[in-house]
Amino acid sequence: MSLSARNRLAGTVTGVETDGLMAEVTVELGDGQEVTAVITSGSVERLGIEEGKEVNAVVKATEVMVEAEPGE
Amino acid sequence: MSLSARNRLAGTVTGVETDGLMAEVTVELGDGQEVTAVITSGSVERLGIEEGKEVNAVVKATEVMVEAEPGE
Amino acid sequence: MSLSARNRLAGTVTGVETDGLMAEVTVELGDGQEVTAVITSGSVERLGIEEGKEVNAVVKATEVMVEAEPGE
Amino acid sequence: MSLSARNRLAGTVTGVETDGLMAEVTVELGDGQEVTAVITSGSVERLGIEEGKEVNAVVKATEVMVEAEPGE
Amino acid sequence: MSLSARNRLAGTVTGVETDGLMAEVTVELGDGQEVTAVITSGSVERLGIEEGKEVNAVVKATEVMVEAEPGE
Amino acid sequence: MSLSARNRLAGTVTGVETDGLMAEVTVELGDGQEVTAVITSGSVERLGIEEGKEVNAVVKATEVMVEAEPGE
Repeated sequence: MSLSARNRLAGTVTGVETDGLMAEVTVELGDGQEVTAVITSGSVERLGIEEGKEVNAVVKATEVMVEAEPGE
Repeated sequence: MSLSARNRLAGTVTGVETDGLMAEVTVELGDGQEVTAVITSGSVERLGIEEGKEVNAVVKATEVMVEAEPGE
Repeated sequence: MSLSARNRLAGTVTGVETDGLMAEVTVELGDGQEVTAVITSGSVERLGIEEGKEVNAVVKATEVMVEAEPGE
Repeated sequence: MSLSARNRLAGTVTGVETDGLMAEVTVELGDGQEVTAVITSGSVERLGIEEGKEVNAVVKATEVMVEAEPGE
Repeated sequence: MSLSARNRLAGTVTGVETDGLMAEVTVELGDGQEVTAVITSGSVERLGIEEGKEVNAVVKATEVMVEAEPGE
Repeated sequence: MSLSARNRLAGTVTGVETDGLMAEVTVELGDGQEVTAVITSGSVERLGIEEGKEVNAVVKATEVMVEAEPGE
């Protein structure tokens, strides 16, 4: 099945910090930029997310903001 | 001022489609991956977002999901 | 690939209204309750979403609120 | 008062796991499907959310994604 | 019924702009600050939202970011 | 740089509760109303958020719901 979410950024997990219910997962993209995801620890376990794993960071387009220099 | 949102991905605007209240902005990252943002047309005008402009795609960490191969 | 989003509700599309960039998709669940999704028209086309199609409504757990009778 | 959020799914709480600031609440819908909500522990206390309680899982339509078989 | 969402800001509607599926509603708070909501036009109609109406702007706590001067 | 998020409410931090990965920050607006944000503890540290600090609570317009008396 495919998901309607428009953003699916491929990268490699470089960090997983689990703390009770929630976990913070860091994903490094191909250009060295990093994406941080806060997901439930249950999902980290279920998907076997760990350092070095190839994953996609997925974001719905309505959740993305844009930051720009107004006078540019 | 700095924002608590953890994800700030630098890129270049490659497309802006405005339609009434809403607009779809496409940002190309350094590794060629694209991020699509749906923001209000008012923000597109206020920030002068147009093709070729250097911007950041900003996402709160709690909005990011992770997709992975469970059995990997 | 599997997604970290915890909520994946199976249902049937009972309505699709497309309007410029955005579209409203109504999904009826097995118990007759309905879920409405606002997604981009681009995703509706890409996924071939139309009335009668079997789909999942997907929601990240941090996006769900709970409504209850406090004094119950 | 009524809320603009379009999705209000009636169900029964089947699990509450509280962990510091955050809590995970599981709601079973009429057709047996489950919805998981991550809310603050403060809200769990304030609303008296506990197993067996009748509640609504509430989601804004812009937060819902759709997953479908593209070639179907 | 009460909602788990922690933020409920009372104010007066000072503007409603409807455009197809989506609508932009501006709410002025007691201190003159404004909150803008993008909701579906269907909800604007259903709730009878119009200029001068007393409403609450409601936001889940996990959706709020904080902006601050780091060196302050 | 300026952000596309339409809502930027100025206020004063009146409470910070940190618990592992996540933190709850309370901001009092000029009219005495409060906004609660759940952000990562990492952001609280990075921005030096503490009681008494002047901050903005920032919310994307698509995340705001409206609550109203339908028959009003």
